Amino acid sequence: MTTTPEREVISELTTGRLSVYLRCLSLLESQGQKTVSSQELADRFHLNSAQIRKDLACFGEFGTRGVGYDVSRLKLTLVQTLGIDRSRNVVIIGAGNLGMALADYSGFNTNGFHIVALLDADPEKVGRTSRADIPVLPWEKLKEVVRKSRVQIGIIAVPAAHAQSVYESLADAGVQAVLNFAPTQIKQRDYVKVRSVDLRNSLESLSYHLKNREDGVVE
Amino acid sequence: MTTTPEREVISELTTGRLSVYLRCLSLLESQGQKTVSSQELADRFHLNSAQIRKDLACFGEFGTRGVGYDVSRLKLTLVQTLGIDRSRNVVIIGAGNLGMALADYSGFNTNGFHIVALLDADPEKVGRTSRADIPVLPWEKLKEVVRKSRVQIGIIAVPAAHAQSVYESLADAGVQAVLNFAPTQIKQRDYVKVRSVDLRNSLESLSYHLKNREDGVVE
Repeated sequence: MTTTPEREVISELTTGRLSVYLRCLSLLESQGQKTVSSQELADRFHLNSAQIRKDLACFGEFGTRGVGYDVSRLKLTLVQTLGIDRSRNVVIIGAGNLGMALADYSGFNTNGFHIVALLDADPEKVGRTSRADIPVLPWEKLKEVVRKSRVQIGIIAVPAAHAQSVYESLADAGVQAVLNFAPTQIKQRDYVKVRSVDLRNSLESLSYHLKNREDGVVE
Repeated sequence: MTTTPEREVISELTTGRLSVYLRCLSLLESQGQKTVSSQELADRFHLNSAQIRKDLACFGEFGTRGVGYDVSRLKLTLVQTLGIDRSRNVVIIGAGNLGMALADYSGFNTNGFHIVALLDADPEKVGRTSRADIPVLPWEKLKEVVRKSRVQIGIIAVPAAHAQSVYESLADAGVQAVLNFAPTQIKQRDYVKVRSVDLRNSLESLSYHLKNREDGVVE
């Protein structure tokens, strides 16, 4: 593997913010806006303008003093930086409520991601389709589906007790990255990255906000 | 409202990390571990030790040099800081796949949060229950449920096109904080905070990682 040390690898928190900026820029572009300043981005979307300038500085000069960023050009750079200028195939493991919801989630099956199938071990679920017509295939087909469709990403939407073994099967099948929705820590292999989504975090953030209000703290 | 300016209000990114630390400490406590150093926390859970020390420094001195943090004491402080030492009632709007999945999501109905009901405008869904026995009530009951059960948090799990009007109804009914899963920006009222969960961000973060690997960048 060739290394390109001159390109800085940005942290997961930064990629999260880049995704947010990308969402904002897409909205502005759809409204016909050509340029935007970091201050306007911050004001419109409740972000931090200094943080925006710092994050975007990693990608070279986009801002023109007094004019701001070129919306379309910056958007394209973010798309390329995040690697969503190409399409990646995805499978979802678990066709329960969560798996079905994710299969039809707007944004999971567009602009760089293509959900090939759900897989489930329950024969009653196999043969169904999601509302967006994504088929539920038998769990035993995992290796075949991953190979034939060149699946790169697996999404775990099974109960916590099965998450680790599903991860192992995904890794064995050749999937390179895993998004885990099961509320459990996955022991990772070196070459198969896991990103876990803990939905409770967002609730706790709201709780923090409510507590401050109850305690009379001004935010 | 009394203000207590001496208490620093921490940012949303920090509360997110506090939630992560809390999850780690709960796991360590369940395994009988009494103390932990920032370095051990970092190593075991793939976190940044300097960031941990910085975040926890906000809450006074917990660490003892050479010994580390007292697991149970630090956990209790994080629980109190996040305001989950009391119980908050929650309703979910939308009893589709996503709403049903969230109703039964481990962590949404424990330790500080109690899901009272799902509400849906579709008469076919009303009267059902989630697997965890949370009832689906008619949408028209919103005000009554919020008042009678003193609901503080509303979760939006409806299509994007309806998210804003659901937000308005929640705010009118007296809900103080909203967790939005619809992929759309909500225009907020001053007193009813919204936190939006964009599940696509996590996929983009994995894409960034895959792209670096494809380009031969060592992370």
